[in-house]
Amino acid sequence: MRRGEIIAIGSELLLGGRLDTNSIFLSDGLAEAGVEVRFKTVVGDVEEDIVAVLRTAARRAEVVLLTGGLGPTSDDCTREAVACATGRPLRRRAGAVAGMAKQLAAWGRTPSAAQQRQGLIPAGAEVLANQVGSAPGFALRWQRALIAALPGVPAEAERMFALSLAPMLRRAMASETAERIERLTLHTLGLPESELEQAISGLVPRIGWIRLGLLASPLGVTVSLTATVSDNRLGQKRFGQFGEVLRNIRKKLGRHIYAEGPDTMEQVVGRELTSRGLVLALAESCTGGLIGHRLTQVAGSSAYLDRGVVCYSNRAKTELLDVPERLLIRHGAVSAPVAAAMAKGIRLRSQASVGLSVTGIAGPGGGAAKKPVGLVYVGLDTYQKNGTGKASTTQAFHFHGSRETIKLRASQAALNLLREWLIATGPLDRP
Amino acid sequence: MRRGEIIAIGSELLLGGRLDTNSIFLSDGLAEAGVEVRFKTVVGDVEEDIVAVLRTAARRAEVVLLTGGLGPTSDDCTREAVACATGRPLRRRAGAVAGMAKQLAAWGRTPSAAQQRQGLIPAGAEVLANQVGSAPGFALRWQRALIAALPGVPAEAERMFALSLAPMLRRAMASETAERIERLTLHTLGLPESELEQAISGLVPRIGWIRLGLLASPLGVTVSLTATVSDNRLGQKRFGQFGEVLRNIRKKLGRHIYAEGPDTMEQVVGRELTSRGLVLALAESCTGGLIGHRLTQVAGSSAYLDRGVVCYSNRAKTELLDVPERLLIRHGAVSAPVAAAMAKGIRLRSQASVGLSVTGIAGPGGGAAKKPVGLVYVGLDTYQKNGTGKASTTQAFHFHGSRETIKLRASQAALNLLREWLIATGPLDRP
Repeated sequence: MRRGEIIAIGSELLLGGRLDTNSIFLSDGLAEAGVEVRFKTVVGDVEEDIVAVLRTAARRAEVVLLTGGLGPTSDDCTREAVACATGRPLRRRAGAVAGMAKQLAAWGRTPSAAQQRQGLIPAGAEVLANQVGSAPGFALRWQRALIAALPGVPAEAERMFALSLAPMLRRAMASETAERIERLTLHTLGLPESELEQAISGLVPRIGWIRLGLLASPLGVTVSLTATVSDNRLGQKRFGQFGEVLRNIRKKLGRHIYAEGPDTMEQVVGRELTSRGLVLALAESCTGGLIGHRLTQVAGSSAYLDRGVVCYSNRAKTELLDVPERLLIRHGAVSAPVAAAMAKGIRLRSQASVGLSVTGIAGPGGGAAKKPVGLVYVGLDTYQKNGTGKASTTQAFHFHGSRETIKLRASQAALNLLREWLIATGPLDRP
Repeated sequence: MRRGEIIAIGSELLLGGRLDTNSIFLSDGLAEAGVEVRFKTVVGDVEEDIVAVLRTAARRAEVVLLTGGLGPTSDDCTREAVACATGRPLRRRAGAVAGMAKQLAAWGRTPSAAQQRQGLIPAGAEVLANQVGSAPGFALRWQRALIAALPGVPAEAERMFALSLAPMLRRAMASETAERIERLTLHTLGLPESELEQAISGLVPRIGWIRLGLLASPLGVTVSLTATVSDNRLGQKRFGQFGEVLRNIRKKLGRHIYAEGPDTMEQVVGRELTSRGLVLALAESCTGGLIGHRLTQVAGSSAYLDRGVVCYSNRAKTELLDVPERLLIRHGAVSAPVAAAMAKGIRLRSQASVGLSVTGIAGPGGGAAKKPVGLVYVGLDTYQKNGTGKASTTQAFHFHGSRETIKLRASQAALNLLREWLIATGPLDRP
């Protein structure tokens, strides 16, 4: 695989809470074209800094994409930096000026004095037309590297990459054996990162072209398998081997895998509810609406989510969910009996097929020795017994981390309880 | 100013749609400590690549922060890479092992064989305790640079930076002429980015040391002012000038500013409710629980949030909020009368001081010519008239964007309606 580097240019990417999102689709596009991004660099609108990172990049990568700094304002200096780093002086290029004038004419405008600067292109570079905005890009070969400069506006960069640069890369690669990156991800819940690695480490052969990655977050641990395969017989053999490794990992992790690839827990749960024709109602305490928010991020969720209640006060738990006061007094709001009563209450009140509840202590205050911050109960109630003969079930957890983290973990645990119940139960009779 | 570089380590940051979010708070923290981040680099879990970027960074920056790759699994190789780049062999450090054991003991666990690797620290480095997770960090001086390695998990990196690294940087800087970056941000809602720029462009002097930044998001437009000031007389004069620019912008934007600095809308609303001793209840439709989730991200929110209901179905609106069926039939669920009835219903049912409601079409489906995707009504109901003589009010919006974006904009609009009502109303009689 060729080595790639993406350089994002813009002072706002260094300070100001903004991230270089262009590199997401550029990495994917480069991977498809057989270029593996090994480095990403962010640098401000400072010519000498851009020159330095470009020279470093051209030494360690064969394809270098720059984004940003091609605009008309005085802080845009990518053109000058490329000219300086490569020793190719800037020239006013008729094709670049004409393309810019044409694009602006479509909006009823003519190039301003400032925009004329956008027609300056390093000598010997190929001009890349901008179909969305006014600033043209360019590409040139320097030393062993292909260097291309794209605008920073995501829509402009994405279009210019797809229309001009991807074909150029494919042509450049045509003489070589085509290689591509295969990448698969499995999202798991319930096994700590180190236990998970121990469980699967024997399943991944210690060969350079398959890479195993583990990534922990409040939503669980994501396992990624990345492989470089070429388009020849060896590649086909490798692709088969890659598939086998994946199947073995899937088998080993079993029910801990809640989703694959771009899928999320809320999408998986939504599909399982839909396929069974079930309707869900929620009773949230410490998650404060997060479960409802997550479920309703999925388009069409109104088909299976009837309602939710957020019961922060005891009174709300009694009034909206018929949680008996004696339970609240005897066991406290954060307890398994109250989680069960909340799930049952919301199911009966709403006449939904399934009630799902959470009660816990999100912190940072409100904890005690017997009931510490992070203690969370999730509950599920349904009109029909599942495989284990239960129509109602609760689980207890003790989560660590910040308030935000505990809320996320609690929402994930509740949705996972529902997912496991759906899978264990299979098709249901309609109520 | 000292030059800083942040190196984020992790193959998932190169391919897989994930971005290095740690660098956002690390850049801010470094700026406060007098270090200007000039470069950010992302590199995979590949030892030779980490060694190469670390050597480059140490040549061009005086402070180099690495994040990620300190975990227990075999793909974590930051320790090895730092040892290799700096020629400082790894040694099992008693302090690091003890800190890790202590942290794990608090969760009732002991270090696994894999986690023992986390106790390996380059010779001569200072161990940085991890107050949130198990992997210790470390800091060492090499050539002219201070190099520090932090975990990749955001909560761990943030805590370790604040508790260990920031004090270390302040000590290191104490001997120099202190320069620092002053940065202030104003969060606004209700003015498009271009109108906002036009409104304030004349207020910011065209001098190099004050930089104006505008950043649009679904939550509004954030205005940032950044200045480099030193601790001498010129610096004091500049600081005064900076303050004046800020005051002028504040005056011009007036009520469009809903928060400043690290504050969020949900924190501002929480404080305004608390200071008035008011209790809030929510009735959400298209936001699906997002408003409740946002409000409960704030510690202590149980003091002013009594309950919320998520009414995705018409039946839930009638049952939980007493929305009259004839309103739903005559005007449809997405209408001003229904928004008003939802806010009134939740207030009366809960006996809270204020009811806040949202109903709308989040899309991508469900739109029609008369009621397109993005149409959102927010409603507020209270027992007491505000300054304009109303005890109940609604607002209509037509938002653009994805389902996620429309939900965010709708939640922001609802919270802003509440904020403006709280400010207009002033202190209230308790009900």
